[in-house]
Order: sequence, then C-alpha cells, then structure tokens
Amino acid sequence: MNFCSHCGAPVTLRIPPGDQLPRHVCDRCHTIHYLNPKLIVGAIPEWGERILLCKRAIEPRYGKWTLPAGFMENEETTAEAARRETAEEACARIEVSEIYSLINVAYISQVHILYRARLLDLDFGPGPESLEVRLFEEHEIPWNELAFRSVAMTLRYYFEDRREGRFRFHVADIPAPSPAAAA
Amino acid sequence: MNFCSHCGAPVTLRIPPGDQLPRHVCDRCHTIHYLNPKLIVGAIPEWGERILLCKRAIEPRYGKWTLPAGFMENEETTAEAARRETAEEACARIEVSEIYSLINVAYISQVHILYRARLLDLDFGPGPESLEVRLFEEHEIPWNELAFRSVAMTLRYYFEDRREGRFRFHVADIPAPSPAAAA
Repeated sequence: MNFCSHCGAPVTLRIPPGDQLPRHVCDRCHTIHYLNPKLIVGAIPEWGERILLCKRAIEPRYGKWTLPAGFMENEETTAEAARRETAEEACARIEVSEIYSLINVAYISQVHILYRARLLDLDFGPGPESLEVRLFEEHEIPWNELAFRSVAMTLRYYFEDRREGRFRFHVADIPAPSPAAAA
Repeated sequence: MNFCSHCGAPVTLRIPPGDQLPRHVCDRCHTIHYLNPKLIVGAIPEWGERILLCKRAIEPRYGKWTLPAGFMENEETTAEAARRETAEEACARIEVSEIYSLINVAYISQVHILYRARLLDLDFGPGPESLEVRLFEEHEIPWNELAFRSVAMTLRYYFEDRREGRFRFHVADIPAPSPAAAA
C-alpha cells in the first residue's frame, strides 16, 4: 500500500497512537488502513462414497486438484460462500452440513474453512477456473497432485473419520514451508 | 475506496472480465482491489464457574459488556488472536481450548469466532479499551447490557451447554436488525 484509498495522498507506515502494530496511515485525511486475514471457504461435496475435486485452471497450482473453495465475499455467510464457490468452480449444487475443518495458514494471513456437503445431483462440470471436475473414491485421491496443504489435511481427516464412523470438527495450523521445501 | 492504494490513480467500480461482482479497479496500473469479510476473534475466559467480561471504553457500544475479542491481525492464528485480544483488553493470560462458536454477521461482512479458554490467574484488569474487567457467575451476567448479539448468543449457548454437561461447537448467523429495532 502506497497511497490512501480514501483521499489519494501518500501513506506512511507507522504505529498509530494507542496501537501496537505499524499501519498505513494517511497524514492528509488521517485514515488508518488496516490489513486483516482473509477467509477461504469451501466444501467437501459427497456423493455416496465419492467426493468431488476440481482440477485448477488458474494459478497458483495450475493443473493440481482441490476441493471447491475460494475467497469469501463481503455480505455473505460462510455457508453461502461454500455453496457459491462450489457452483462457480464445479457448476455443482450442494446442501452444506457442518463446518468440518478450520485451518490457519498464518504465514500468508489466511484462514481456510471447509464444510461437509452433499452433492444434490450429478449435473456438474468445470467452471471457468477449473480444467476438470470429477468424483473420487478414497483410493483414487491424487494425493501427490493436490493443490494445497489445507486440502490434503482436510481429506486425510475426512477419510480417517469416515473409517472410524464419526465426523468431528478439526482445527489445525499450517506452518510456513521450510526454505528447502519452498525452493 | 476512491483511489488506487498501489499507484494513487482514481479507481472505478465495475465488474472485471471473468468476475461476478463489481470491484474497485485501477485503470492506470490495472490492480483489482478486493474487499473481503473480517474475522473477529476472542475468548470465553473461565475461572471455575465464573467467566470474564470487559466493559467497553470505546465505541461502538461504549459502557456495554463483552467477551474479550477483536479484529484478527495478519500473520497470526485464530488461537493467537484470542490470546492477544484477551491480553490487550483484560490484561489477562489464558490457555485456549476449543473453538466454541462461529457466528456470521453477514450484513456487516464479519465472522466472529469465540474460543473456550481457561484463565491462568486472577492478575487481570482493564486494558486501554476497557473501563472495567470482572468475573461473572451465570446469574450475574448483565444480559441487557451486553455489547454485541454474537456475545449474547455465545453466552446463552455456553450456559445451556454447561447445564447439560457437554460443550459442542455452535455455528449461527445473525440477520440484519429490522429497521424498527435499529432505530
């Protein structure tokens, strides 16, 4: 952030009086600009024993598989975001049930929330951000071709819970990748 | 938003190609500015049968009682946010346990998350944003003087669950107040 989005003057980064952290502050109109974490919300759409994944047609992770999920929009609820993202990425209609996982990805200032959901019919297909959409049995999951660690983690919890016959709410943190792993 | 925070040029509000919603778009540097919901995170600090509330020293709801909670910061986890907010508002140290409630307040683009937590000692007191901090038995809760509906809702769930001897995760939506109630 270089300029005040309210009045257009340059901003400076400093700790405002009474605050603890540096913020982008406008010295002309005195607006303090806060940056906050973003919510990524999605679903685990179930059809019997199978679950729906999307192959990404966009960066990051072009060509990798993911659960339908994306940035939550203003003025929607988390359940509405899960339904909307599933409609946009997989052209699919779902009935959302409970929140299944909440995963902190603090090093990129994101919180990921995934809902369990029931696919309402088999009339789905790739939206503009997907190359392909299909249903996977557990043994077919492309574990080495998953786009995000939060998705891999959620799917591991999911199949483990399913084997144990009870689903519970999972909360976890994903640490920053080590420099070696990121390279 | 009137100006591009990246280059300072005026922005226009329109639907970018391939998008579904109007965004603030910069015609000079082509940055698309997204506005997303904010996370408010806090705790229900327990000390035996009592829970800690803070009397607000700031607007909105100056003088009303609330659980310690506030805007989540970039690069922290939800549990870290709950601990930090409790330290800032009540000068109190807590051990957080599970996420207890997630409440959508879509009409103001917020998601509120409250953790169950154990107060580690009785060395607490008002931080700069609080007038007073104290412990309340259930029968002492100032139900008509609570600052926010998400706090009232969470406390109602909490005491009901406690009476039933089991705490479970609650997800709820708070609708916009009716014009009559807001007046």
